[in-house]
Amino acid sequence: MKALVYHGPGSKAWQDVPDPTILRPTDAIVRIDTTTICGTDLHILKGDVPAVTDGRILGHEGVGTITEVGPGVQSMAVGDRVIISCVSACGTCAFCRRGLYAHCLADEGAPGLGWILGHLIDGTQAEYVRVPFADSSLHKLPDGVDDATAVMLSDILPTGFEIGVRYGKVSPGDVVAVIGAGPVGLASIATAALGGPSRVIAVDLDANRLEQARHFGATDTVRSSESDWREQLLGMTDGLGVDVAIEAVGIPATFTMCTQIVRPGGHVANVGVHGSPVELALQDLWIHDITITTGLVSTSTTPMLLRLVAQHKLPAGAFATHSFDLDEIEEAYDVFSRAAETKALKVVLTR
Amino acid sequence: MKALVYHGPGSKAWQDVPDPTILRPTDAIVRIDTTTICGTDLHILKGDVPAVTDGRILGHEGVGTITEVGPGVQSMAVGDRVIISCVSACGTCAFCRRGLYAHCLADEGAPGLGWILGHLIDGTQAEYVRVPFADSSLHKLPDGVDDATAVMLSDILPTGFEIGVRYGKVSPGDVVAVIGAGPVGLASIATAALGGPSRVIAVDLDANRLEQARHFGATDTVRSSESDWREQLLGMTDGLGVDVAIEAVGIPATFTMCTQIVRPGGHVANVGVHGSPVELALQDLWIHDITITTGLVSTSTTPMLLRLVAQHKLPAGAFATHSFDLDEIEEAYDVFSRAAETKALKVVLTR
Repeated sequence: MKALVYHGPGSKAWQDVPDPTILRPTDAIVRIDTTTICGTDLHILKGDVPAVTDGRILGHEGVGTITEVGPGVQSMAVGDRVIISCVSACGTCAFCRRGLYAHCLADEGAPGLGWILGHLIDGTQAEYVRVPFADSSLHKLPDGVDDATAVMLSDILPTGFEIGVRYGKVSPGDVVAVIGAGPVGLASIATAALGGPSRVIAVDLDANRLEQARHFGATDTVRSSESDWREQLLGMTDGLGVDVAIEAVGIPATFTMCTQIVRPGGHVANVGVHGSPVELALQDLWIHDITITTGLVSTSTTPMLLRLVAQHKLPAGAFATHSFDLDEIEEAYDVFSRAAETKALKVVLTR
Repeated sequence: MKALVYHGPGSKAWQDVPDPTILRPTDAIVRIDTTTICGTDLHILKGDVPAVTDGRILGHEGVGTITEVGPGVQSMAVGDRVIISCVSACGTCAFCRRGLYAHCLADEGAPGLGWILGHLIDGTQAEYVRVPFADSSLHKLPDGVDDATAVMLSDILPTGFEIGVRYGKVSPGDVVAVIGAGPVGLASIATAALGGPSRVIAVDLDANRLEQARHFGATDTVRSSESDWREQLLGMTDGLGVDVAIEAVGIPATFTMCTQIVRPGGHVANVGVHGSPVELALQDLWIHDITITTGLVSTSTTPMLLRLVAQHKLPAGAFATHSFDLDEIEEAYDVFSRAAETKALKVVLTR
């Protein structure tokens, strides 16, 4: 088959590789019908994720059709149309039983599952992929949800919801600020409505992204390039700060912004992938009654979000701004990596 | 009357001052029968709390008898024996209605109440004290609870419980580590049992404090001066870390220790009063599904804790290691400030 193979920082190729095979009784092989590219894939290509080694097939998002199942697979069958979750999990270890699939303890070569696709095992930017623990790592797709919509449930929608909205405890009447209006920030904005907030404020440097944020449900926008951004934002509250600040960038400056705008009793939910430590102003914050959360998506809410998507209650399809054939994936990477210029949110690749 | 007056860093005096008077209809005057000294008072004397100015009467803990009430006080009367909460609150503003008394928005000269006694208004290390919003800032004391026990409910027991145990979400079966076995850390240890943990591990540099921690309910101890402290501690879990790490020191090193021992899905509850920022290793923690909380006690659980103390379910009296007459307060400060040597936990001053 063909697959996008990582060959060290800055290097990748769409090339022939062996077809994946069932390695364990709980595996399934899925033919990729649709996949997409994540900001994390760009991080990998920069060399920021050293656990990804030369020869690895990239990608952790996808929608496809099961072509083979191992004898231990119980609820999935050949021919099923499925969402491939970015997180693989056994469903039975101590963390899985708590819904913390991201920290699954099962052994897939090295101990621990979670985010392994396109990371520690071969991923979804390929014609076929092996999915471990198919029963708990795949979700059957109902009729009426198209692939380009469904693939947003592999990662970005559950990430924005679970790690931003749910960990941030967005509650009725809350004022919510989302710092960073990239795909995952927009996923938090789109799913924040599930908590019943009074305002959802998108904060970004880029005017185009702020405009897009309104289409995903932001009620207000603040350009963080303006010197009085904090005053503008506090002016959208009672002056005491937001109830929930969601960090969806992954740099120290935006994390610190969150701690500077949250009110006493409020929540800072970190969604961003960080590469360096941040200075936490505990000399001010110790007295402030705030809660800071971090996390990798467990995709435990994917079935719930899928119901909402199937009922057209979430604008999942709107993330797909660009479409390519699967074998045009290198061009798709180029468009996605120049998102500020191309205005790409998610690029969708179909077989 | 006599009171302990702050005269700038390093300087205090037990001296004659005017008696307090009712300034607002919701005030009460309380004759101090028993008071104590907090680590925060030592911070003030070092000059670490610049909001405390020359002439301020120190102290925010006390048990006493009401001698006068303003016309707006409804539930308290002259002669009532009361616990003076370290936090003063109106009971009716938006934060008070959520139980966040620490962030009360009422105006007492400057906007905002909360911890103001011995800080922004005159405190309890005196023969008499004015207490604002007496209805919500005092707690009537039942018969059968002696003063030296009750005064632990002014601050340390609710602080250890609310900011350590409750914010840390100590739950049945949890393994809990408390870093720092000073009075507030011991208060977290003593109240952790209310969450039903399987183990409560006290961590401290000082062997004497660890021995004391066992009397307050620690099931295990770890000396943090030992190079393998982390391995010892993880060995008391399933190897994946503790469910809850409570920081009760207030320095960067101990906060970082907490983030290094907490398991995925776990909680770091910061109780310590910090004077400097900390480096948060977000490059490791972003994926770790942890929750970090900060807070100042709201004393919303004081009535509940008082019921437990009255039923001898909490070892509140055991905190009182040294007793002095009120006019020996300067000697009491000396003993308390040399706690490592004198083994003082709380020094109790009675009229």
